[in-house]
Order: sequence, then structure tokens, then C-alpha cells
Amino acid sequence: MNSGVIVRRQITSKVAPDDFELSTVPLSEPQPGEVLVRAAYLSIDAYMLTMLKGENPSQKILPGEPMKGRVIGEVVQSRHARWKPKDRILGILDWSHFVIAKGDTLTELVDDGLPLTAHLGALGSPGVTAWAGMVDVASAGQNETVVVSAAAGAIGSIAGQIAKIKGCTVVGIAGGREKCRYVTETLGFDACVDYRASTFERDLRAALPDGADVYFENVGGAVLDAVLPCLKHHARIAVCGLIAHYSDQPVSLRHLVEIRRRRLNVRGFAVVDYLDRREPIIAELRGWMKSGKLRHHETVAKGLAAAPGALVGLFEGANIGKQIVAVETV
Amino acid sequence: MNSGVIVRRQITSKVAPDDFELSTVPLSEPQPGEVLVRAAYLSIDAYMLTMLKGENPSQKILPGEPMKGRVIGEVVQSRHARWKPKDRILGILDWSHFVIAKGDTLTELVDDGLPLTAHLGALGSPGVTAWAGMVDVASAGQNETVVVSAAAGAIGSIAGQIAKIKGCTVVGIAGGREKCRYVTETLGFDACVDYRASTFERDLRAALPDGADVYFENVGGAVLDAVLPCLKHHARIAVCGLIAHYSDQPVSLRHLVEIRRRRLNVRGFAVVDYLDRREPIIAELRGWMKSGKLRHHETVAKGLAAAPGALVGLFEGANIGKQIVAVETV
Repeated sequence: MNSGVIVRRQITSKVAPDDFELSTVPLSEPQPGEVLVRAAYLSIDAYMLTMLKGENPSQKILPGEPMKGRVIGEVVQSRHARWKPKDRILGILDWSHFVIAKGDTLTELVDDGLPLTAHLGALGSPGVTAWAGMVDVASAGQNETVVVSAAAGAIGSIAGQIAKIKGCTVVGIAGGREKCRYVTETLGFDACVDYRASTFERDLRAALPDGADVYFENVGGAVLDAVLPCLKHHARIAVCGLIAHYSDQPVSLRHLVEIRRRRLNVRGFAVVDYLDRREPIIAELRGWMKSGKLRHHETVAKGLAAAPGALVGLFEGANIGKQIVAVETV
Repeated sequence: MNSGVIVRRQITSKVAPDDFELSTVPLSEPQPGEVLVRAAYLSIDAYMLTMLKGENPSQKILPGEPMKGRVIGEVVQSRHARWKPKDRILGILDWSHFVIAKGDTLTELVDDGLPLTAHLGALGSPGVTAWAGMVDVASAGQNETVVVSAAAGAIGSIAGQIAKIKGCTVVGIAGGREKCRYVTETLGFDACVDYRASTFERDLRAALPDGADVYFENVGGAVLDAVLPCLKHHARIAVCGLIAHYSDQPVSLRHLVEIRRRRLNVRGFAVVDYLDRREPIIAELRGWMKSGKLRHHETVAKGLAAAPGALVGLFEGANIGKQIVAVETV
């Protein structure tokens, strides 16, 4: 018996838990070149919505197909020379307890004393994304003031910590008092502003009395609109995500004129453009983690059946830090 | 008797002709260091709205004060060692037939065989602005495809011609068939799309089958929204103006997400940041004009009384090329 998460329908705007179902999925013997993997942790990521909506023809998931994503697991049986049982791997795999994987597509996770799940967060794509935006795109430097939206999220939490490492004053934006407390007390940001508060715009201006040099953007919409008038002239915006704009519905903005008025430099970027620099970036992130300067934080949902709800929760801001699912094997 | 244009009220959103009045204005004798100038041509510019709305405290024009802007004129009487009668000058002066100016604030216009009024257009701030956006901000290069909005306007018309000089394929966007014909036939753009046509978005996609590398943005709003999905990945947007966003009313956009999806590089810029490079830039523009590669075009309103209407017309897209006013002296 093997269980897996199946996509039930084509997603057009938001995801709901009943867009998925947990059902029995077939499990064959590994063929030459393949391995059998027992899944341990699933990564829950915003890009999955794009796959489910079929926006990118080469990466879409159709109704009736297994849901898939980055998975950390353990090799159970191997017919690939590179792998042997008990090896710990990371791969793009179906969401199921056991799964057949092509040996060539897997990455080995070496035990370096850091938490295994950090490879889905600070030492994985969220970490590389945060580094790319803060170091390469925005070039945040000593004594600069940096604003980070979705500051309690997988990427924002790391982006702000990197800015602290670079000697910046860092102001987070997050939803709710609990997240804001986490951002300042646990992550060490200098301040955090609650975008759900009725006083949000005023609070943000108060937190940035001299304006910001850099804005690490995960959100767009009303949050972007509030930040624009708080930026210094010639400030840089690293656009990592625009979650408020993903529905293709019109979004109303009052302050876009500030791009011209303040001579802003706005750059969209994506982690896929950093594939060739991934290893040195992760090496730097690992160094920061080992020296205690960078922390990996996560929210863990328990059991494969909780995975759809965890994905839905991601778009409702339910998680603090990286959202993962711990797969309890049967 | 001296006539001048006086601002009647504080502008809050749009300008109307009756926000101004032509009235008798005082004229004193020049004091030491001053000269008396007879105005010949007034420059009509979009930035004037900002001054009239008082958005920039150091550059606002209050009700009851004379309207002012860039003026080309002739020295009539001088009490400044630098100037003598008949000298042709450019200065930021009141809109009146005769005006007292501080000699130190004027620029001499040397007769180089080019039209005097080009110093308000291709050889003036519009030319420097177009150069800054196309050459410095966007770095438009050989064999690239460039889109220019407000292509028939003072800045857009020059920006597109510079892109042609740089070896680009240039697609203009303008309002109405007459302007589009001007943009292709007179200015030599490769194509021009009418944003007022009901088929605008489709026409634009058809004119850019492989997407654009560079967008020179003067407009914002619905035009920006139509261009965003027509850009190549990593395309550059030089934001010169966002006229659709100047009212501080919310503006609705559907495709802002393309900044992230296409990893666009969007940069606002302003001609004031190029003061120290102004002379070499104008020298290059002058060289292009002399060799016939760059043309200065203008719409001329006749008489001081026509100036308020010319300014209002600028925001309604009434002009082709640089809008100026020829001041008929009494």
C-alpha cells in the first residue's frame, strides 16, 4: 500500500484543500537507473500555484496527476550506481510515501551537522533566492536601510538576516503581531511593521524616518504602494515575488509614480537565473549558519494528508519561516 | 505696457485655460547685474504641472504669481558685463513680453546654423532627457528592438530617433493615425501603434512578434499594461514619465507581475541628474542634427495669450513634437 496526493482539478485562481485528494497510488519496482525513495519532508512553495494553473507549459501538473515538488527522502532500494540504501537525497518528486525516482535527477544531502530540512530553506532555493535578491540584485551594503516584505516567510526571513549580516538596518513587514514579534525577537530585524494594522502606512513611515535604500519585494499590491513613498531617491527594489498580482486581476496602485519621481531602480529576478552560481552561494549561506549568523526557521505540518492544507495556508500567510511537511510513513 | 501670464489658482489635478489670465504686469529698469529681455519663444513642458500643484516646495508657483518656464529671448538692455543688446539667451523666466532677468542665470545661444528653437527641444532638456533614457539608462544597442510611448511628443520623438541612430528597430506608440503617420514617415520609426484604436493590444503584439528589449516609458497606465507582456525576458524599461499616474488617483494594472515573471529592469530617471554631463550630451545631439540623422520637430502656438491653451493641450496630446509658443511682441 502506498499513498499519494493527487491533483483533482485544474486551478484557475486560488487553491483549496479539496483541489487535492489522498489516494492509493501504484508502486512498481525500480528499473535500471532508478531508485526507490521513502519521502521524509516535502517543501511547500508559492511557485506551485503557477504549475497547478498550467501557466508554464513545460512545468504544469494536470488533473489526475500526482502533486509534486522538492522532497527530501531516503533511498530504500537502488538500481543506480551512484546510490545505495540509506542515502539521503533531495529531488523533484511526487508527493507520496514511496516514490520511484531517476537516479540522475537526485542531489545528495551530506550530513554537515545542520538540520536536514535547512536544504529546503536557508540552504535551499529560498536561501539562494534571498541571497540573489539582497546581495546580487539590490547590493545591500554597510549602513544602508533595507525593507523586506513577507518578512516572516521562507525567503523574507533569510533576506532580512542577510541584510543584517551585511551591516544594514532592517525593517520587516509581516501580517499580525505574532509574526512581527518573531521577526524582531527571533530573527533580529531592527523593527517590523504589521501590514494588517489600520495604522500600517503611518507605522511604516515612522519606522523609516530617513527612508529606505533597498526594498526586497515579495508581495506587491497595497504593501508595495505603502513602501514606494518611503524610499530614498535612487533606491533599489529587488522584486522576488508579487503575490498580490498572481491572479491576473487588475491591481490598483496610487504611488507607482514614485518610480519616476524618486528615480527608483526596480529589478525582477528569479532563482533559476542563478543555477550556475548555486554552489558558492549555498557555501556562503552554510558558513553563516555554522557561525550562528543565519538561522533556518520552519513551520512543520505533520503527515502527507496535511500537505494540501499547508499549501493553501502558504497563500493565507499561515506559516512562519519555511513551510514544510513531515511525511509520516505508514 | 507689458503683458504677462498670471496663475490664478492653485492647481490640484488638471490644468484648464482659465487657471491663467493675461494681464498687465509691471516692468522696472534693470538693476546692476540684471538685464532686460524680450521673450521670443516659450517652452511648454509637462513638469509645469508639478510646479503648479506645488509638489516640490522649492519650485512651486503660487496663485497671483507670473507663470514661468524656459524662455528663449533677446537682450534689450544690460547692466551685466556678460551681456549686451541683441544677445540671444535661454533662461527660466516669467511668461511676459519683457522681463527682467539676473544675468548670471542666463545661457547664451550661439548661432550654429541650427534652428534657435531646437534649444527647447532636440538640443535642450527634451534632447538630454531622451539621450539619458535611451543611451545611459536603457543602453539600447545594435539590433535590439525598442518601444517608445508618446512617440510623437517632444522627448519620445527624439528618443526613438536616437534608438534608430544606435541601430535598433523602433516601434512607437502614439495617439491617433495622424501622429502615427508622422512617427513612421517623418521620424523614420519602423512602425507605430495607435493606442486609441480598439485593437491596440493586438496591434502592439503584432508589431513586436519577438518582443522588445527596451521600453522608453513616458505614459504609464494602460499603455504600460499593454507593453509589459510584449517585453523580452530581462528587458529594460527607462521610466522618463508616468503621465497617467500624476493625478495621485489609483491606477489599475493587470500585468505588473511581468516585472517579476520576465525579470525586467525598470529604472526611473530625471534630466536633473545629468546636469554635469549636459554639455557633452548636447554636443553629440548637435552632431547628429548637423549630419541630418536627428530632426527637431515642433508645434508652434502663436502669441502669449495662446500659452495657457498650449499647456493644457500638452496633457491632451494635442502637440506633435516639441510644443512651443512664439511670443508676438506688442
